[in-house]
Amino acid sequence: MLDPSLTEKIKASVDAGFAEQIAYTQELVRFASTRGSEHAIQDFVFKTFRSRGLTMERFELDRETLERHPGAGRFSEGHSTAPIVVGIHRPRAEVGRSLILQAHVDVVPPGPLDMWTHPPFDPVIEGDWLFGRGGCDMKAGHAANLYALDALRRIGLQPGATVYVQSVVEEESTGNGALMTHLRGYRADAALIPEPENEKLARANVGVLWFQVEVRGRPTHVSVMGAGANAIDAAYRVVGALRALETEWNARKAGRPHFESEPHPINLNVGKIEGGDWASSVPAWCRVDFRVSIYPGIDALSASREIEQTIAAFARDDAFLSNDPPRLTFNGFFSEGYELSPGTDAERALGQAHLLAFGKPLETVVTPAYLDARVYALFDKIPALCYGPSGRDSHSYDERVSMASVKQITRTIALFVADWCGVEAASL
Amino acid sequence: MLDPSLTEKIKASVDAGFAEQIAYTQELVRFASTRGSEHAIQDFVFKTFRSRGLTMERFELDRETLERHPGAGRFSEGHSTAPIVVGIHRPRAEVGRSLILQAHVDVVPPGPLDMWTHPPFDPVIEGDWLFGRGGCDMKAGHAANLYALDALRRIGLQPGATVYVQSVVEEESTGNGALMTHLRGYRADAALIPEPENEKLARANVGVLWFQVEVRGRPTHVSVMGAGANAIDAAYRVVGALRALETEWNARKAGRPHFESEPHPINLNVGKIEGGDWASSVPAWCRVDFRVSIYPGIDALSASREIEQTIAAFARDDAFLSNDPPRLTFNGFFSEGYELSPGTDAERALGQAHLLAFGKPLETVVTPAYLDARVYALFDKIPALCYGPSGRDSHSYDERVSMASVKQITRTIALFVADWCGVEAASL
Repeated sequence: MLDPSLTEKIKASVDAGFAEQIAYTQELVRFASTRGSEHAIQDFVFKTFRSRGLTMERFELDRETLERHPGAGRFSEGHSTAPIVVGIHRPRAEVGRSLILQAHVDVVPPGPLDMWTHPPFDPVIEGDWLFGRGGCDMKAGHAANLYALDALRRIGLQPGATVYVQSVVEEESTGNGALMTHLRGYRADAALIPEPENEKLARANVGVLWFQVEVRGRPTHVSVMGAGANAIDAAYRVVGALRALETEWNARKAGRPHFESEPHPINLNVGKIEGGDWASSVPAWCRVDFRVSIYPGIDALSASREIEQTIAAFARDDAFLSNDPPRLTFNGFFSEGYELSPGTDAERALGQAHLLAFGKPLETVVTPAYLDARVYALFDKIPALCYGPSGRDSHSYDERVSMASVKQITRTIALFVADWCGVEAASL
Repeated sequence: MLDPSLTEKIKASVDAGFAEQIAYTQELVRFASTRGSEHAIQDFVFKTFRSRGLTMERFELDRETLERHPGAGRFSEGHSTAPIVVGIHRPRAEVGRSLILQAHVDVVPPGPLDMWTHPPFDPVIEGDWLFGRGGCDMKAGHAANLYALDALRRIGLQPGATVYVQSVVEEESTGNGALMTHLRGYRADAALIPEPENEKLARANVGVLWFQVEVRGRPTHVSVMGAGANAIDAAYRVVGALRALETEWNARKAGRPHFESEPHPINLNVGKIEGGDWASSVPAWCRVDFRVSIYPGIDALSASREIEQTIAAFARDDAFLSNDPPRLTFNGFFSEGYELSPGTDAERALGQAHLLAFGKPLETVVTPAYLDARVYALFDKIPALCYGPSGRDSHSYDERVSMASVKQITRTIALFVADWCGVEAASL
C-alpha cells in the first residue's frame, strides 16, 4: 500500500508529463502501422525505449517455433515480419514483484477514407478526444506504459523489480507477437496490458478463430443460369449455415459464469467478401473471411473441427456444393479465451491503484474480443491484467480516445507499478 | 434463289478455305481481348480486312454522341477506348440488297485460370472442338463473316451490293460498339451477326441492364457487433429484395408470345461482389454488380425506375439501410430487347441458305441474353439476323466451338450473301 504523499507525488508527476505524453501518442498515431507495416514504428519505439535507459532486445517472429505451439495463430501471406521490441528495466535490488507491461502497435485497416472526418493517421484533437486509427486501440495505452515509468523517474524513482516493456505486433490478426515474447522466455509475476477497456478490468474473454471459405463453381453465360452454379449465392448459403452454428454456440452460454448474462456472447463476423469477375457471367468463385469467438475453456482445435463439420454437413446436402465442396482455411487467430481468477494480489494492487486514481472501485468486464492477455494467462499462468482507457469506435472510422481517461489510466499504472514492483532511487 | 451449280461451288469453296479459316480463328483467340484490351486485335482485323481489298474506316466510340442516344449503355471507368473497324465492299453495279455483317471482338474475363483445361487464350483443338475464351463467343463468327466473302472471291465472285463488315467492341458490357456504327450512319437492307446461337435464328431477345449497388455503413469492433451494421449482410438483404423483383418480372411472362413458354425468361445475376477489409472489423462497405434482363417492349428507363423503387422501398423498412440508403448506379448495358418479325425477305433468304447448307429447315430460338442485333432491329429498323454456330460454355471456362458447325454456318453465310446481295465478277 502506497503512502498518501507518494501517491500524490506520482499523480502530480503523471500530470506534469501529460502534454508530452499526448504529443508522443500523436507521434505513434502518425505511423500507419497496419499489419505488415509496423517496421518503422517498431524502430521508433526501439529508439524511444533506449533513450529512457532501458536495456533493449529486438527479435523476429519465428515461424517454426510459433507453429510448434498450440496457441499460435495460423500463418498466411499477410503475416507481419516486423520485429518484437522489448525494453528491460533491471533494478539495483530486486525487492518487489516483476511485471510485464505490454502493448501492440499494429492497427486494423482504416476502411474507406471518405468516411473519416479527419484522415485516419492524422491525430487531430477535438475537446477531450484524440482521433485516429489505432489511437484508442491501443497507442494511447502503449504510451501510457512508458509515461507511467517516466512519471516515477521524474520524482527520482524507478521500479524495484524487473519490468519488461514489450511492444508487439500481430495482436489484430494472430496474437503471435505476444506469444513470441513467451516463447522467447520472458516471464514475470504479473502482466498489464492497457487495451481500451473503458477503465475496467477484463475478467474473462473469448478465444477467436479466423477462417476463410472459398467456393468454386462452374461459371456460365447468364442466359443459361440454371446450368451454372452461382458461387456468390453458394457462399452466402454457407454463411447461413455458419450463422446457425453461431446461434447454437450462443445457446451454449447457459451455465458459463461470465457469459450467460451476455445477450450475445459469441459473434460470427462476415468480415470480407470477394467473388466473381463480371456482371454478365455467373460467378465461378467467391471467398469469404470470417472471424468467430469461442468461450474460454474451449480449445481452438475442437472449435475448428466443429466449423469444419458444419460446413461439410451443409455442403453434402446442397445441390451445387456437394459437387464442389467449399475449401476451408484457418488463416489467423487460432486462440483460446481465458478467465482472470479473482482474488490475486495483482488484481488487488491494481484495484487499489485505480481507487487512488479514480476515487471509485475498479469494475470488471467480460470482453467478447481477442486479447493478448490470454498468452500470459494461459501459458505463463500469471495474473494477466487487461485494463485501459475509454474510447469510441475502435475498428471503425473516427476512432478516438478520451485524453482525460488516458491521464487517469496512466496514474493508475504508475501507482500500480510503484506498489507492485516497489520503488528505489532512480539510476542516473 | 441460287442455282444448284453455284450452290455447290460456294459450298466447296468454303470447304477449300476452311483450314485457313480455322487458323485465322485461332489467331483471333490468341488476342486476350477482354474489355478495354481490344486495341491490338482491332488493328489486326483492320490490316486483315484491308488485305482483302475492303475500303477501311476506323473510328472511336464517341461518348457525347452515344450519351445523347437512349439505347446507349452507361459509361464507367472500365469502358473500352478501342476503335470500331469497318471494311466496306462496294460493288461495281449495285444490283442486290445491301448487308451489314457484324461481329464483336471483346470477350468476357476468363475467371480463375486454374479452372481451365487449357490456358484460355491458347486455341487448342481437340476433335471437333476449338477451345478458348471468346472462340465461341464470337471469334468463330467473326472469322466466318470474312471467310464467307473469301469463298465467293475464290470462285471469282463478289457481292453485287454494298457490304459493311463491322468489327465492334463493348458487346459484352454496353452494346455501344454496335450503336456507334448506327450513329456513324451505316445503314443496309439487313444485318447478320453470327453469334453462337446453336445454328438457330434468334426470334426475340431480352434487353439487359447492368447496375451496381453499394452499401456503406458504420464499421465497428466485432465485440460490439450489434452497434455496427454489417454492410455485407445489408447488401445481401438488397440481393433478396431484387430476387423478389426477379420473381415478379418472371411472372409477367404471361401473355408474352415468345417468353411465356420459357421456364425462367428473366435472369438476375449477382455477378460480382466485394466488401470489407478485415475479418475482425464489421465491414463498412460492400458493392454488388448485377445484370438483369427485361422483355422486349419494356424500355430500359422504366425498368431502371422499377429497380430504383424496389431498392428504395426495401431500404426504407430496413433498420440499417434506412439510415444509409444503398447507392444505385447503372454502369453498363441499358438496352431494350427486340423481336424479329417473321416473314421478311431476309429471313426467307437465310432460311433457304441454311436449308442448302444443313439439309434441314432453319429453326428459331428466343434468347435470354443481350444481342447487338437490337441496334439494327430497334434503330435501323431492318431485319436483324442473329444466327451462328454451336458451342459450349460461353462465359465459362473451357469455352469451345464446334468446327463442323462453324463450317456449315460459313456455308450458310456465303450462300445467303450470294442470294441477298447477288453476285458479280470479282474485282482484281
